[in-house]
Amino acid sequence: MRQVAILGIGQTKIDEHWDKSIRDLAVQAIRTVLQDAGRESAEGLFAGNMMAGILDEQNNLAPLLADFAGLKGAEAVKVDTACASGSAALRAALMAVASGELDSAIVLGIEKMADRHPHEVTAGLATAADADFEVEMGVSFVGLNALLMRRYMHEYGWKHADFAPFSVNAHANALHNPFARLHQKITVEDFEKSAMIATPINLLDASPIGDGAAALYLVPAETLRGGTRIVIAGSAAATDTLAVHDRSDALFLTAAYKSAQEAYRQAGVSPQEIDVFELHDAFTIMSALSLEACGFAERGQGVRLGLEGDILPGGRIPITTRGGLKARGHPVGATGVYQIVEVVQQLRGACGPSQVPDARIGMAQNIGGSGATIITHILKRE
Amino acid sequence: MRQVAILGIGQTKIDEHWDKSIRDLAVQAIRTVLQDAGRESAEGLFAGNMMAGILDEQNNLAPLLADFAGLKGAEAVKVDTACASGSAALRAALMAVASGELDSAIVLGIEKMADRHPHEVTAGLATAADADFEVEMGVSFVGLNALLMRRYMHEYGWKHADFAPFSVNAHANALHNPFARLHQKITVEDFEKSAMIATPINLLDASPIGDGAAALYLVPAETLRGGTRIVIAGSAAATDTLAVHDRSDALFLTAAYKSAQEAYRQAGVSPQEIDVFELHDAFTIMSALSLEACGFAERGQGVRLGLEGDILPGGRIPITTRGGLKARGHPVGATGVYQIVEVVQQLRGACGPSQVPDARIGMAQNIGGSGATIITHILKRE
Repeated sequence: MRQVAILGIGQTKIDEHWDKSIRDLAVQAIRTVLQDAGRESAEGLFAGNMMAGILDEQNNLAPLLADFAGLKGAEAVKVDTACASGSAALRAALMAVASGELDSAIVLGIEKMADRHPHEVTAGLATAADADFEVEMGVSFVGLNALLMRRYMHEYGWKHADFAPFSVNAHANALHNPFARLHQKITVEDFEKSAMIATPINLLDASPIGDGAAALYLVPAETLRGGTRIVIAGSAAATDTLAVHDRSDALFLTAAYKSAQEAYRQAGVSPQEIDVFELHDAFTIMSALSLEACGFAERGQGVRLGLEGDILPGGRIPITTRGGLKARGHPVGATGVYQIVEVVQQLRGACGPSQVPDARIGMAQNIGGSGATIITHILKRE
Repeated sequence: MRQVAILGIGQTKIDEHWDKSIRDLAVQAIRTVLQDAGRESAEGLFAGNMMAGILDEQNNLAPLLADFAGLKGAEAVKVDTACASGSAALRAALMAVASGELDSAIVLGIEKMADRHPHEVTAGLATAADADFEVEMGVSFVGLNALLMRRYMHEYGWKHADFAPFSVNAHANALHNPFARLHQKITVEDFEKSAMIATPINLLDASPIGDGAAALYLVPAETLRGGTRIVIAGSAAATDTLAVHDRSDALFLTAAYKSAQEAYRQAGVSPQEIDVFELHDAFTIMSALSLEACGFAERGQGVRLGLEGDILPGGRIPITTRGGLKARGHPVGATGVYQIVEVVQQLRGACGPSQVPDARIGMAQNIGGSGATIITHILKRE
């Protein structure tokens, strides 16, 4: 199995792009990644996307985007694991290059959500949950996360304001990311006063949707000699039951634990060696659960890392350094690729005021459903 | 890159399964493949599916099916390239095992279409075409194929009845396949008299939809010693423009040519050595175009292979030996996996009256969109 390196990155700003179609966004991200990689084409396009079939009436997305982006004839496939689609596409591309089947591949994360009525988007997002046993009961995706947050607060005695540092940090970091959707500093007071969505989740607990596309260019690491390179040192996926009620312990992300442990093993590192961690903060509760499952905090103590400043760019385990899902935005199928783009930016030292000093080992974790599919990647600068 | 073998196969009958959900069908196919492979679980599940997000309100399909089929915790991902989703899932699984990332993987092709109103299914199928430049004009998926067939007849001087042997052969072979949707012998006269759908395509030119699931169990070939084994000797994907009007030559399947040439090269065989060919006969015109692009007939002469009996089980290049899309049925995202299951059955000598004598090398070709994504696999018994 060949080691794989990330030669280039590309992204569009996350926004409500009323003037651009899904193919326009894809072309923009792919052109940028080709330019960054110094390449003219690629043998394969692996697109992570969740909702084009539902919101854009365009299911057969990959060959369309390959053609419009000038990758004519390339192998092109769409990979979908709901909000983890981006990192699942990365894994598919990684295995294509690692196996020797392809010598170059573009990973694209793409989602166009903002054109449609919010009711349609909410219904679309609910297809990430169990249609017959969760959605049928009327629970939305935010609702499922609200139940988890409420239970966590009850079990471990935290109050709502204790989650504020996750959102405050994300918004502060997004100020320095031109591609982020929200450029708005917030305080703990703003957090507590924001509008209620699904008790106890309020507006500033939740990540915004958006239109966006991000891209990576993969090549065999052995082809890059001389100078520094960024390699994928660990990559692992695991699943849990799709329905939250089917889990014996809903407050522990088993699939996060499994995929992180396997990624640590592959990369030969421990959690203490991770310099930066782009986690899946779709809701603040997920930040806490993810930090705990990945070995950065004891069970029930994830929020303490926020309260004690450990998650800041200069802290023990910096998270959401470019804004995270909370402030960079969460175009669902694209998010996993944005996370990797941002880890690469950290390892390149390109993050300005939110740069983690001398970041050398970075991790990203992407979640599909309420913890059903969890994919962890570890990148190294070497 | 490790060679990969197919250790087991499984399938459900293709039908209108009003009494079964998409998860029931998946569990049935996965249980069957585990039994056939003599295994209890697998490290990964790669599901090919096109329309669960649209027709079943269940986008996040793979972790759900992994859980319900007893593959708890396994990596699980959905791959979607419209009607080529099944073989795209096979390619993703193949690269996972070939790269050494996984030591076992189940490929599942699954589609549940028959519960919904035909108008919804037709609209869903149209998402395989270019939404902005084809579907927007009001053309359906059958309509696009009808335009291709009409042009082909005009260019090469064939009449409609000349396409009859493709459907007659498919229906004759399906009589011996208990998993086929249609068990009904047809004649050239039936073919000519059947109801018009979209001129010149009539009912017996077109494949029926259906509910169905098929599965494969992949392992590294090196783990199978002694006795015969069936290996994946060639696997390749290529794309063309999604919109038919963007092609300079709409009557030649460029992506079929490219992927077949690459599969021949990998397998070290020529078209003359292929003993059986499961092609993508969604419409009779696609059989002709596929045979031509893969080197079995000159341009414009694909229909001649039907008229001269070359496509029969005892002929020069037997096709649709278990009924093909036409009579076995076409549950879109599942079809690519059914094709591979059937090639394995041929190489195992398990096809009764439609067995190709001493079949040793088999090919399958799966098409997504009107020729946009084309994936070719070559299997060998050794």
